[in-house]
Amino acid sequence: MNYFGIDIGGTAVKLGLFDEACELLAKRQIPARLDNDGAFILPDVKASMKSLLEAKGMDWSAVKGIGIAVPGPVLDEGFVPLAVNLGWRNVDVRDVMRNLTGVDNIRVENDAKAAALGEYRMGGWESYRSAVMITLGTAIGGAVILDGKVLHGAFGAAGELSHIQVEPGETEPCACGKFGHLQQYVSTDAILKDIRKKLSDPACESILRGYESLSVKDVFDAAKAGDGTALETVRSVARMLARVLAAVSCVIDPELYLIGGGISKAGDFLLEMIRTEFKALALATSENARIEAARMGNDAGIYGAMLLAERGCAEG
Amino acid sequence: MNYFGIDIGGTAVKLGLFDEACELLAKRQIPARLDNDGAFILPDVKASMKSLLEAKGMDWSAVKGIGIAVPGPVLDEGFVPLAVNLGWRNVDVRDVMRNLTGVDNIRVENDAKAAALGEYRMGGWESYRSAVMITLGTAIGGAVILDGKVLHGAFGAAGELSHIQVEPGETEPCACGKFGHLQQYVSTDAILKDIRKKLSDPACESILRGYESLSVKDVFDAAKAGDGTALETVRSVARMLARVLAAVSCVIDPELYLIGGGISKAGDFLLEMIRTEFKALALATSENARIEAARMGNDAGIYGAMLLAERGCAEG
Repeated sequence: MNYFGIDIGGTAVKLGLFDEACELLAKRQIPARLDNDGAFILPDVKASMKSLLEAKGMDWSAVKGIGIAVPGPVLDEGFVPLAVNLGWRNVDVRDVMRNLTGVDNIRVENDAKAAALGEYRMGGWESYRSAVMITLGTAIGGAVILDGKVLHGAFGAAGELSHIQVEPGETEPCACGKFGHLQQYVSTDAILKDIRKKLSDPACESILRGYESLSVKDVFDAAKAGDGTALETVRSVARMLARVLAAVSCVIDPELYLIGGGISKAGDFLLEMIRTEFKALALATSENARIEAARMGNDAGIYGAMLLAERGCAEG
Repeated sequence: MNYFGIDIGGTAVKLGLFDEACELLAKRQIPARLDNDGAFILPDVKASMKSLLEAKGMDWSAVKGIGIAVPGPVLDEGFVPLAVNLGWRNVDVRDVMRNLTGVDNIRVENDAKAAALGEYRMGGWESYRSAVMITLGTAIGGAVILDGKVLHGAFGAAGELSHIQVEPGETEPCACGKFGHLQQYVSTDAILKDIRKKLSDPACESILRGYESLSVKDVFDAAKAGDGTALETVRSVARMLARVLAAVSCVIDPELYLIGGGISKAGDFLLEMIRTEFKALALATSENARIEAARMGNDAGIYGAMLLAERGCAEG
């Protein structure tokens, strides 16, 4: 028997076919068609699963379960009220996929939560009883794992670390409408906005001034090379992240923090800065929480989704 | 069979004798003797338990378990490395009490966590799957309850809400040595310090100016009566609390917040202000979390301690 792990994003959909031992047999990526309010996404996923099965000489009867990660909140084990990036509104993902595939065991989970589960279970972190994952990118994802389970919360907002307030005095609103949230300082957009603002000051010296287009990687590379302006921006990112981690430690006091996502490729450089800022901010008792880079990269989502189907239960 | 619930504080020790149905049979309060590094406290507790038993015609054989709440962290189910208010350092409370009483089933828990458990179980809140309690007073206590269990965290710091940073720009240190923590703005001392600072400005108008000595109750009463200066202080307390609750919602998203402790006697006045500030700050999904006043008052601690012994397990 086999399992699918599907990770639906605003640009691409990743599909993984796994065997019963959770080994990845085949992986595929298809574009996410956003026209028609994303109505083609799930049928496209079904077609791609079918072709993956056929390539392995299998059919739907070989599929014991399908786990699906979606970029939005998930209610009642499969209903997605809103997934802005996909154009979805009130999509019953479980129902639609059951009808499309005939497979009964369909599990649906928020993508950040699924990725955290995949990272925790398959990244070699299971010896830690509690972990918090934060994923840095265009958006900031978060998830809390306690006793091996992803926490959902009473209103589905557990792990929404991007909306913890880190600057009470902020006058510009976050995308959510409130003020001074982590998202406003550490997303890729926020980092680029900050560096561009600094460069707009003619007195500001930076090697980044000569760049035609700027990426977050450029900013981190410049910081690593000792560029003072870039360093200031990266240090601010580390400080804002550390404020959130210090607050999280006062609430659930996890043993492990996992930093994932595109920005985390800055690697030890960013990680060391976060660790330093965290030690300066956190309560002494929690100072020894480990802060590590995630290991599973972009595959964490398909692994986590697969695990939900394989275990046959909504975690948490 | 019977249980004792003991709540040890820096001023007094409360003792409750309970029957098997968790009914309170007798209650007593004795002073906490702080001389000799608090070495008399546990023997005094033992003597008081013995006299309570004798008054009911019982002896130690009638005692199935003893739960003890202490004002400090608890390691390894009974070891207290430090309880500043009692003068304790490295006291193995479980061991000492076993030797004093001959009772084997001894459970030791941090006082804020025991009080939260007592409040949650006996205050009529058990229908809520998750709750966070914050106790306002000289110190600020906090505790997180998930699936009916008090969370301890990897390093014993779960629920330490008083040390969440609410003012990143603060230059005065918290008692813990770090900066801008909740404790610095909402403890009784902090409230009195803030109002005194306001009153030291000759231009500040307030009915509190005429008071010889000021209590937190005076400040709340003045705010209720419409005194602008007092109102400003109380609103700041509500705002700082709301900042912490909004952050907590982004981490574990509890269904219920319980506000306890002396200050909470300000009742609906403070509660309504906290609710308003919380709605303004919290992520929309969590706005409907309930914020209620604790109901068990000072007895929450002895009930919670008793419950730990009655259940025969360290919760969480």
